Amino acid sequence: MAFQGELAIVGVGLLGGSIGAAARQRGLFSRVVGVCRSARAADRARQQGVVDEATIDAARGVSEASIVVICTPVSSIAGAYATIAPACPRGCVVTDAGSTKQELVTEIETLRTSRTTLPPFVGSHPLAGDHRCGPEAARPDLLLDKTVIVTPTPATDPEALARVEQFWRSLGAKLSTLSPTEHDRLLAASSHLPHLAASLLAGTTAEEALPWTGAGWRDTTRVAAGDPALWADILISNRQNILEAGRLLEDSLRGALAALEAGDRDRLVEVLEQGSARRNAVGS
Amino acid sequence: MAFQGELAIVGVGLLGGSIGAAARQRGLFSRVVGVCRSARAADRARQQGVVDEATIDAARGVSEASIVVICTPVSSIAGAYATIAPACPRGCVVTDAGSTKQELVTEIETLRTSRTTLPPFVGSHPLAGDHRCGPEAARPDLLLDKTVIVTPTPATDPEALARVEQFWRSLGAKLSTLSPTEHDRLLAASSHLPHLAASLLAGTTAEEALPWTGAGWRDTTRVAAGDPALWADILISNRQNILEAGRLLEDSLRGALAALEAGDRDRLVEVLEQGSARRNAVGS
Repeated sequence: MAFQGELAIVGVGLLGGSIGAAARQRGLFSRVVGVCRSARAADRARQQGVVDEATIDAARGVSEASIVVICTPVSSIAGAYATIAPACPRGCVVTDAGSTKQELVTEIETLRTSRTTLPPFVGSHPLAGDHRCGPEAARPDLLLDKTVIVTPTPATDPEALARVEQFWRSLGAKLSTLSPTEHDRLLAASSHLPHLAASLLAGTTAEEALPWTGAGWRDTTRVAAGDPALWADILISNRQNILEAGRLLEDSLRGALAALEAGDRDRLVEVLEQGSARRNAVGS
Repeated sequence: MAFQGELAIVGVGLLGGSIGAAARQRGLFSRVVGVCRSARAADRARQQGVVDEATIDAARGVSEASIVVICTPVSSIAGAYATIAPACPRGCVVTDAGSTKQELVTEIETLRTSRTTLPPFVGSHPLAGDHRCGPEAARPDLLLDKTVIVTPTPATDPEALARVEQFWRSLGAKLSTLSPTEHDRLLAASSHLPHLAASLLAGTTAEEALPWTGAGWRDTTRVAAGDPALWADILISNRQNILEAGRLLEDSLRGALAALEAGDRDRLVEVLEQGSARRNAVGS
């Protein structure tokens, strides 16, 4: 077994369930325990076979864990840490899977400053997901060859960081490192604003036009199917960076519509060329 | 053979090439002839095997055609019709594959009013495509189960309409009917504005953020890889409708950013719910 002890997953949805499924399939821990917020959620996690055991008793769930990964919505990750941390055994390391980092990493580190016996925490963000939710959509290969960004700070325990990196690698992921500040600034542009833009585009498409959508509209708006409450929390917790990126997009839209109104074909070609160049820099 | 005579395809790119490949594979015509704008383009069409013959001589290319389909960029479809129409044999029907309809249908019908011997024209728009271009990307199943919108007007010859509908069906497509005006209004929302929005989003994504893009960004911006000149023409030829849809999106973006700045989570959830509802109404 790659790790001693158990893996505890707090929040067994798409991502938590996929982590559990992968850890079980690869036999990485003696046991995989899901910590769920309701008996019904625990039943679903068990039924999908993504954990060995599921409980709503957080303290019991983490009591034998060597690694705890918190997969709840971003707005409740710091709170989940505060709840489970006192019950974690010595040597346990805690990480998460939240889409924003600065706010929650700061909150958890502040908590640890005043209570130094709490387990070390390393912020993580797996760049893997799906517009579907819940353990029913989980699959053991969700993280395979995907990037996980870890976000250590000067306060991060180096041994804990190494263990968390080993954890994600053992699930098949690739590792990258950013500070929480850099992470939130870059992800605002690469993930959070695109989600908002896709949602606004879908939301403003006239209903009568929906039967005439093709692959283009479906691709462009796919992420808009994601969970609204979960995404509202992500947007709010990375507000300043998304506002900055969003204002660039707003200016760019206003400029393109002005060029269109003026029939300025050269300017439109320029704008579309910039989009096509950036898009082609990434690949399909 | 489903059709007498030859099929002439004016402009053998992704769409023209795919139509040719499907027509050849299904043996629908005695011969499939490509009309290309350069000897090099004709060579590429021949090399890909999507036509039986390719020529840069438009009059010769259409001389035995029972159906001509014009697959050039929208800005040159009416001009291509004017070029080939006098050379079309009696009984020949002309259609196209342009993404906008009102401007070019009006232009061609005006031309036919003054010269009634010119062949009948029926506007068509196959909702099929790809961000790649050229006959190299062509495939015989590109139109399979895709919708083709035909856009007849009171001036449209009913027999010509029936033949064009039979043509698209025989390539595996499904048929829908809209007036050119309705078509352009609906497609502005379902296709043209989404393309522009995807391009602006890709174009304003900071270069330093590109390594941190995941499946969400890639889906949302995929169409932005499309040909800038071709899309500039589409945008300009459907300018008024795209401006209207674009201003709705601009208002929506401004409102969402204001809600974000104010930390108004309830409003953000509402906005994201509207996006998710519209998106889920369409399916993956």
